[in-house]
Amino acid sequence: MRIDVAFTPGEQPEAAVAIVIDVLRATTTIAYALAHGYSRVLACAGLDHARELAGRLGDGTVLAGERACVRPEGFDLGNSPRELAESEPGGQTLVLSTTNGTRAIVTAASRADTVLVGSLANLTACAAAAARSARHAKGDVLVQCAGVGGEFAIDDAYTAGRYVAELRVWLAEWEASDAAQAAEAIAASFPTAADGLGASRSARNLRAAELAEDVRYCAREGVLDVVPTVGDVDDDVALITA
Amino acid sequence: MRIDVAFTPGEQPEAAVAIVIDVLRATTTIAYALAHGYSRVLACAGLDHARELAGRLGDGTVLAGERACVRPEGFDLGNSPRELAESEPGGQTLVLSTTNGTRAIVTAASRADTVLVGSLANLTACAAAAARSARHAKGDVLVQCAGVGGEFAIDDAYTAGRYVAELRVWLAEWEASDAAQAAEAIAASFPTAADGLGASRSARNLRAAELAEDVRYCAREGVLDVVPTVGDVDDDVALITA
Repeated sequence: MRIDVAFTPGEQPEAAVAIVIDVLRATTTIAYALAHGYSRVLACAGLDHARELAGRLGDGTVLAGERACVRPEGFDLGNSPRELAESEPGGQTLVLSTTNGTRAIVTAASRADTVLVGSLANLTACAAAAARSARHAKGDVLVQCAGVGGEFAIDDAYTAGRYVAELRVWLAEWEASDAAQAAEAIAASFPTAADGLGASRSARNLRAAELAEDVRYCAREGVLDVVPTVGDVDDDVALITA
Repeated sequence: MRIDVAFTPGEQPEAAVAIVIDVLRATTTIAYALAHGYSRVLACAGLDHARELAGRLGDGTVLAGERACVRPEGFDLGNSPRELAESEPGGQTLVLSTTNGTRAIVTAASRADTVLVGSLANLTACAAAAARSARHAKGDVLVQCAGVGGEFAIDDAYTAGRYVAELRVWLAEWEASDAAQAAEAIAASFPTAADGLGASRSARNLRAAELAEDVRYCAREGVLDVVPTVGDVDDDVALITA
């Protein structure tokens, strides 16, 4: 069994099971949404696409997203896991507009049979589920980082490294790819998750938008039991349920 | 001034100066060829393309390359820096067939004004030249890894990390991208260069082909003063001179 990591969404490895990471903040937001009362998340890239989708679904739909860290006009919520965890769910469905996360999910869905949504928040639960799924399929596990604008992001790479380490706990026999080894080395180079996430360009942008508290929040490891799983991907909209 | 790293050739960052790395073994071979008497290297991807090119150039041309670590039929030399260093040059021009290295050089040439060919062998000389060139252009430096088949390779990532560290010695003011930080962490996680290169899939393939000595050879740092520089790229053939 092979553990692999793709640091950018443009890479093309195949695997039985993929775990998609956009730790600051999309995949952390998805984990918190499903852990705090939403029954499904619909992730799509464009703001207008998200608005149209939420309008079509009507009552019981909450519209969340961001551009440059900030909640867009007319949206109910930003892309903040903290905001989701600290408020009652406003409906059954969360429509989330996120560029990098959605791109990585859609890419992964085209190459893996099972696609899970990973963050530090649900590290243990998600890694255990991925290992079970890979054992069952007798296939490989890929940790797919979302990156930023197609480029490498160290917050996602840090989280990928934590996933590789956790997957090794759950898998009896495994072989780590070059990228999986590198991800572990990157994670091990930071004393804490807050340092690893905090070193990223995304964290600098969040701090500049006075959202440093979200970085700290996304760095909390293994606090949710939820395993967000990607179902249909249709018209670049990914359906995610727990 | 920004120091950036692209771990795979599919990434698209732009920079004033790019250093291309395919440390096992193409870019090391190029450095040794130019340091040991060849006046130019013509790098191209296909074997037939290389044969045709060498045939057209005629006398004074030496044909080198590999497929699965081994010298192809009809070729004068394999892709071994050791072989080049230990023999007299058989001509003025080395035609080198290398898939990953050529792809990375051609990609880099389309995005950077100056493209240098880097290895551990010429680390100090190449980093110093890149820093001079970037200061002159008031632009950024990109370390472009070749990877393997479009995927991440830890031998190239290790070398990229050593280049980031060396560039910081030569640049007065710099900002490291997420990927540059990660490359440094990867390099720092190995006690020696032989360990960093030796951990890669490419090294395993070389060991299996009884070429372990080439891994150790490619791990020697800062032993050549040569700065291979990419000139014209025409019909996917890159002209490289010192």
